[in-house]
Amino acid sequence: TQPKVTLAHGGGGTAMRDLIEDVFLETFSGAGHAAPEDQARFDLSALAAQGDRLAFTTDAFVVDPLFFPGGDIGKLAVCGTINDLAVGGARPVALSCAVIIEEGLPLETLRAVVASMARTAAEAGVVIVTGDTKVVARGACDKLFLTTTGIGVVRTGLDVGIAKGRPGDVVLVNGLLGDHGAAILNARGDLALETPIESDCAPLHDLVATLIAAAPGIRMMRDATRGGVAAVLNELAEASGVGVRIRETDVPLRPEVNGFCEILGLDPLYLANEGKLVAVVPPEEAEAALAAVRAHLLGREAAIIGRLAAERPGRVVMETRFGGERIVDMLVGDQLPRIC
Amino acid sequence: TQPKVTLAHGGGGTAMRDLIEDVFLETFSGAGHAAPEDQARFDLSALAAQGDRLAFTTDAFVVDPLFFPGGDIGKLAVCGTINDLAVGGARPVALSCAVIIEEGLPLETLRAVVASMARTAAEAGVVIVTGDTKVVARGACDKLFLTTTGIGVVRTGLDVGIAKGRPGDVVLVNGLLGDHGAAILNARGDLALETPIESDCAPLHDLVATLIAAAPGIRMMRDATRGGVAAVLNELAEASGVGVRIRETDVPLRPEVNGFCEILGLDPLYLANEGKLVAVVPPEEAEAALAAVRAHLLGREAAIIGRLAAERPGRVVMETRFGGERIVDMLVGDQLPRIC
Ligand SMILES: Nc1ncnc2c1ncn2[C@@H]1O[C@H](COP(=O)(O)OP(=O)(O)OP(=O)(O)O)[C@@H](O)[C@H]1O
Ligand SMILES: Nc1ncnc2c1ncn2[C@@H]1O[C@H](COP(=O)(O)OP(=O)(O)OP(=O)(O)O)[C@@H](O)[C@H]1O
Ligand SMILES: [Mg+2]
Ligand SMILES: [Mg+2]
Ligand SMILES: [Mg+2]
Ligand SMILES: [Mg+2]
Ligand SMILES: [Mg+2]
Ligand SMILES: [Mg+2]
Repeated sequence: TQPKVTLAHGGGGTAMRDLIEDVFLETFSGAGHAAPEDQARFDLSALAAQGDRLAFTTDAFVVDPLFFPGGDIGKLAVCGTINDLAVGGARPVALSCAVIIEEGLPLETLRAVVASMARTAAEAGVVIVTGDTKVVARGACDKLFLTTTGIGVVRTGLDVGIAKGRPGDVVLVNGLLGDHGAAILNARGDLALETPIESDCAPLHDLVATLIAAAPGIRMMRDATRGGVAAVLNELAEASGVGVRIRETDVPLRPEVNGFCEILGLDPLYLANEGKLVAVVPPEEAEAALAAVRAHLLGREAAIIGRLAAERPGRVVMETRFGGERIVDMLVGDQLPRIC
Repeated sequence: TQPKVTLAHGGGGTAMRDLIEDVFLETFSGAGHAAPEDQARFDLSALAAQGDRLAFTTDAFVVDPLFFPGGDIGKLAVCGTINDLAVGGARPVALSCAVIIEEGLPLETLRAVVASMARTAAEAGVVIVTGDTKVVARGACDKLFLTTTGIGVVRTGLDVGIAKGRPGDVVLVNGLLGDHGAAILNARGDLALETPIESDCAPLHDLVATLIAAAPGIRMMRDATRGGVAAVLNELAEASGVGVRIRETDVPLRPEVNGFCEILGLDPLYLANEGKLVAVVPPEEAEAALAAVRAHLLGREAAIIGRLAAERPGRVVMETRFGGERIVDMLVGDQLPRIC
């Protein structure tokens, strides 16, 4: 029978110490690391060499299923927190990893998730430096939840924010929308598509670096996770006191995603993304921004989807493909459960 | 019927935004806060004015029941993370708050927990600056889990660590051991004591400041949570390559805790604490350290419980009250489930 996580693995004794050592510390830091302290420590002057402000962000991850086309909960947790640092203009530095495990989870499942976290972090050049491991009784949680918290350093002089949009600014996204939400729905068997859609789950810090270099006057960035692009645009409209006008024909969508959204009556602007951001740049930098993003592996299908306007402040208005107009509100009511 | 948390509260739409705004942001930051960004930001030079290193730590909290004599999951989550910062010699600065909520949790319960977090943080002078809110379907988690991550600044020149113990050093604790574990056991009805025991849950950063001022040569501190004082002493013995000798008669215990431990055959050294630390100080600073800790509200029952020795490196040995000796190992097997 395959080895499983037991309550003793969270009990503070030898079983816990061995699990943490063997599954987490070896994977995250390699063998031969020093005896761990209750906190990681970073030289503040080394951080200050990278910028003038510390960024700090956290997300919990409860996605079901744990593994899906294009990713898994571990990759998602690392990318999600990297992205919340990156969209603030920060270079991601380090992550923490808190896990809540249901008694009985196969150890192999845990190892696969942790290996995916380590791989994703290493590729992104961030270190996982501290964590916590709790085990709850069977039935007290569903398999595995992760919470990653990140610290990073914001580039000196850069000041992006949701309230910084100005009329005339240009809105761009870095590619096809809704793939993550669609991938999870389909992985649950809710769509029964012939070819699985892959989640777009990806770390965006390098794309963001490229974008900032091309558009140093950039106003704001947001990764369009739960609530989709619609949520980001509505927050932008409200916080900046501007109208947002987008054009339906300019919104990049995978035909399969577009297709099932039509069939199910879903709006792809509400679908979650895990590797897509909305960026607002001043008009004179829009062309350079788009070209730079398109030249990046994670931005090949990037598009300008709209502009900010003085008219209808607080509102997001879409010119439909039929030449009409409709208001794109925040999502009201349920969206897709456990997508992130 | 009382209002409850629904899946829509985690869905990325208006219900989520309103819940975060109303329950978390207003409580943590007060009304009139700016539109929130995906990450909090801190001036690095302001941090550097407090010390030379950043400390970073995380813990998940899954305690059952959510409310118990002496505290609740919110107070526990704030204190626990403050303590993991403090024992590294850091002044706690800010916390993040990630919550996983079971669909159907009464909103009032959530509010009570969040209010307790806010109160505890405010009293400790730390700010809760960012967070995340996920809702899972009924049955996918048990009521409410919290993960707090903390950042702080380590005092310049101070370098404490688990490997820094030296033969001759003195081991002290700041008070009665095992109260948290006992309180939770009893709150679950597992003990049926006549008078409830209160958890010792408390933020230790101020006590730590006092201790460091009195014993600037301090070697290490650890809060004795899961696995109790026995776990800390074993890690210390191993990492420092020293023997640890403690005396049973010097271990401060509440008579009730001692009593039920004897009846149930539990060792109080394995019981969890949430407001107790183990500190190791050089012998010449021991007296000053003890006096300073005893003068603090959270250290009135502090005691020197033992010493480090060159003999029996890696081992924790207790002189029993009957004049014998026994080895105090790490806990093997289960401890108390869901105490933290
Ligand atoms: N999932 C994990 N990933 C990375 N590191 C981890 C993980 N779990 C634990 N650790 C590390 O192992 C060490 C011990 O963690 P542990 O949670 O026991 O410490 P603690 O927070 O002081 O205790 P408690 O959680 O009981 O309050 C710490 O250095 C911690 O960072
Ligand atoms: N429990 C909470 N406590 C404090 N702040 C919170 C909490 N939940 C959310 N917030 C804050 O609300 C804002 C929106 O959070 P949200 O989780 O929607 O952002 P996100 O992480 O970018 O999105 P997602 O979680 O979908 O990736 C952030 O500023 C966040 O810090
Ligand atoms: Mg996020
Ligand atoms: Mg985000
Ligand atoms: Mg911990
Ligand atoms: Mg802890
Ligand atoms: Mg979030
Ligand atoms: Mg600790």
